[in-house]
Amino acid sequence: MINKHSPIPIYHQLLEHIKHQIESGELQTNQMIPSEREYAELYQISRMTVRQALNNLVLQGYLYRKKGRGTFVGNQKIEQTLTGLTSFTEDMTGRGMKPSNVFLDFTITPADYSAAQALHLKEYTPVYEIRRIRLADDLPMAIETTYVPANLLIGLTEDIVHQSLYRHIEQKLGYTIQFAQQEIEASIADKLQANSLQIEYGAPVLCMKRTSYLANGTPFEYVISTYRADRYKFIHELARDADLKRLIYI
Amino acid sequence: MINKHSPIPIYHQLLEHIKHQIESGELQTNQMIPSEREYAELYQISRMTVRQALNNLVLQGYLYRKKGRGTFVGNQKIEQTLTGLTSFTEDMTGRGMKPSNVFLDFTITPADYSAAQALHLKEYTPVYEIRRIRLADDLPMAIETTYVPANLLIGLTEDIVHQSLYRHIEQKLGYTIQFAQQEIEASIADKLQANSLQIEYGAPVLCMKRTSYLANGTPFEYVISTYRADRYKFIHELARDADLKRLIYI
Repeated sequence: MINKHSPIPIYHQLLEHIKHQIESGELQTNQMIPSEREYAELYQISRMTVRQALNNLVLQGYLYRKKGRGTFVGNQKIEQTLTGLTSFTEDMTGRGMKPSNVFLDFTITPADYSAAQALHLKEYTPVYEIRRIRLADDLPMAIETTYVPANLLIGLTEDIVHQSLYRHIEQKLGYTIQFAQQEIEASIADKLQANSLQIEYGAPVLCMKRTSYLANGTPFEYVISTYRADRYKFIHELARDADLKRLIYI
Repeated sequence: MINKHSPIPIYHQLLEHIKHQIESGELQTNQMIPSEREYAELYQISRMTVRQALNNLVLQGYLYRKKGRGTFVGNQKIEQTLTGLTSFTEDMTGRGMKPSNVFLDFTITPADYSAAQALHLKEYTPVYEIRRIRLADDLPMAIETTYVPANLLIGLTEDIVHQSLYRHIEQKLGYTIQFAQQEIEASIADKLQANSLQIEYGAPVLCMKRTSYLANGTPFEYVISTYRADRYKFIHELARDADLKRLIYI
């Protein structure tokens, strides 16, 4: 398993080995793995090297630690399919999980540069700003900030936090939701985000920025979400486009 | 800009303020920003606080440092659209950038568990393993490991590294490439990855795993890519599906 003559660092070989054991099911979710000392003895390597491998796997969400207990195999990630435009509530319900919110903030505020750009508004136009933590089965999954033009959804109140915004728009107001444009980036959690998501400072997060449009072309929401990367991944399909084949392959 | 009575930590307020200046174009790519000392004096905050904000922005790719010179605004990210199935070569050429490779390794090797699963092979079936660093305009963008079933592309040689695999499959072998399934995750760079991508250890990366299929349903490649998160983001569109509206909104 560990080849001390390889140019690949030993901690990285161990990391890949444990990752492989998790992906192949040899190590199961919530199973305790050997201690640093045990790995060190097993492969005749230093505890420092073992620690480096395990720390990386904890940050990447493959493992988690319980104080005074040991190191365990983490949960499988939630797979979100990038096809239909669904809300968090819909997503979690669809996979049999219980969605809930921790409400942080509901204000009417002048749109900053990014929100104004996304919503096709002049900077400083009033928007609702809704901040909440999204939970699935009581575990924090994402921090979400939603901006909605105030003149589009007049009289929106804090109650919306406990319902679905999409339901409100479609059923109460009778608008048709058409499509959304979404960006996906990777980042690391700062202290504030780490605290809200109950992850370590410096752990990876997935950042999503979404602008959603009504059938008449009006953008009705701009959402910035920060997802725990240890519990979330995105999946999607790509089709080979016959037209593309001409301009390619230099 | 900085409100010392806000519950939001000061470093986070400064971070958001600088991010906003970059996104709005007030600070331009490659422009030098004020020093730690200057920010500290300007807002009457500690240099430690300024450093915390700037360190975060460096790790997130908004800023970069030049030793002994100062801190500068980073490049805009490359936006990769998640619609058509295109290769890295095609992608970069399409946006007017020069794609190139650093060749690391070309071997025939027994498929490990993940590669075998993805390619619908028995574990230990021979596969080509091609490892390379992908560059755009001579800057490292991604580390890529491609697995191809050895019995599907008999006689593939190291030369393929300097060409397009897709071109080879479509034009030389006459196969039709149909579609791919792709996963996107966030992670942090370990030392090896950081070194190859010329980023800091612990910086965020985007991980993509792709399985691509021929028209007859045979998987012909399994690719694991690690992209610099400071230079790359994914964008895509989502359509609201009328059928979904029934099962939603609890």
